Amino acid sequence: MGGAVVEDPEQLAALLDNFSAIEGKKVLVHGGGRRATKVAAQLGIESRMVGGRRITDSDMLSVVTMVYGGLVNKSLVARLQAKGVNALGLTGADMDIIRSHKRPLKKVRMDDGTESMVDFGFVGDVDRADGQRLASLIDSGVIPVVAPLTHDGEGNILNTNADTMASTVAKALADRYDVTLIFSFEKKGVLANPDDDESVIPAINRQSYIKYVEDGTISGGMKPKIENALEAVEAGVKRVIITLATLIDGRHGTIITA
Amino acid sequence: MGGAVVEDPEQLAALLDNFSAIEGKKVLVHGGGRRATKVAAQLGIESRMVGGRRITDSDMLSVVTMVYGGLVNKSLVARLQAKGVNALGLTGADMDIIRSHKRPLKKVRMDDGTESMVDFGFVGDVDRADGQRLASLIDSGVIPVVAPLTHDGEGNILNTNADTMASTVAKALADRYDVTLIFSFEKKGVLANPDDDESVIPAINRQSYIKYVEDGTISGGMKPKIENALEAVEAGVKRVIITLATLIDGRHGTIITA
Repeated sequence: MGGAVVEDPEQLAALLDNFSAIEGKKVLVHGGGRRATKVAAQLGIESRMVGGRRITDSDMLSVVTMVYGGLVNKSLVARLQAKGVNALGLTGADMDIIRSHKRPLKKVRMDDGTESMVDFGFVGDVDRADGQRLASLIDSGVIPVVAPLTHDGEGNILNTNADTMASTVAKALADRYDVTLIFSFEKKGVLANPDDDESVIPAINRQSYIKYVEDGTISGGMKPKIENALEAVEAGVKRVIITLATLIDGRHGTIITA
Repeated sequence: MGGAVVEDPEQLAALLDNFSAIEGKKVLVHGGGRRATKVAAQLGIESRMVGGRRITDSDMLSVVTMVYGGLVNKSLVARLQAKGVNALGLTGADMDIIRSHKRPLKKVRMDDGTESMVDFGFVGDVDRADGQRLASLIDSGVIPVVAPLTHDGEGNILNTNADTMASTVAKALADRYDVTLIFSFEKKGVLANPDDDESVIPAINRQSYIKYVEDGTISGGMKPKIENALEAVEAGVKRVIITLATLIDGRHGTIITA
């Protein structure tokens, strides 16, 4: 569940209804970037993004810890509990579920085409997820609600991309369950024509992805999303579905398989 | 662990060391009021207190949800994990551990001696705690770290006093374990002479408490704290200890028994 959905009361209500209706074991992974940007602005802290990713200095780390781990996570948990879903809010630090290390300086291609070494600050690149502990929670009837925060095992919380968190959790559970990873999204799926919201590509695999990139059908921000999805299915996740936030029933959207 | 300790890096470090060293099963319940007041001020939100309790309007509820559930809770969890303590951050909403209802208008004696009907806003009075679920987490080796937030079962987070949270958790576990409830505090214990930090009263029970109140030894803010403690021991908690934040080893402070 992306940060845009968090900010749209109607979409959020629909998504929580749909999530509650999904049968079987499930995990909700959420973002919250737009809310973090708002709260940071109210605190006089500027949000700096490079290549779509947030620069997380010490003040911004406090903001995302508050917003992702507190405000967004706990309000989702309370709302799911009201629907009879036995939600438990988690960050990667809780029960040591997901550990990461602080991202080293990274070469990034900037908007103007030049390359720069960027210090993303307190951002975590995931090292490992504890599928065993997650599974034992899930098997006991708990529905984890995961905020995009991890820890380094040395006492520090690190900001971690929500898509990465979702695929990390899905991969960690893939050897125990038949896992479907659903990315809720502002479109009905991956579009063949960006100007036509109905032009959803029904299915993508590695082979067709390469073709779509070569002919220009898939470009820009969709590329890392689909690469992330392909990596997940190649690591054992059964299928990834990219779909509208209000249609997360597994029957709509673009299905990505190995 | 009170909100004052959260704000004092040295005391906090000592308390976390001492907490980590406690043998056996354990739960950490924390406050965070001083940090909430700071963050609220940075957001231009005024903190209003009546009789030592925070008025929680909708904006202040967002602040305490962020600060207690996010900033304070997750930084404690990450720091405990670094010490090898398998911490799991919880609010009352998580796994439906502690449910409450919104406090109705309440008659309060004001500082000037008059009485007023006060609307505390989104403040929760506890209805019940799920000792079974807490115990099953604890028995699986998890160390719950509990933020002073509850929920009403209808989707709303409610702000709840940290001392009340601590005694609620202690009472909920009292029929399963031999429970010692330790209130970490800015003094070495309950003092016979407020000007003498060494004048710790070693033990209090209901009978001696009545005597201390009658002769004026115990007054003001200590009264609700000790009444809360007496209520806990009368509900099955073995002993309550009121002690300095850096001396939570069970061998210092004032012991309160039934």
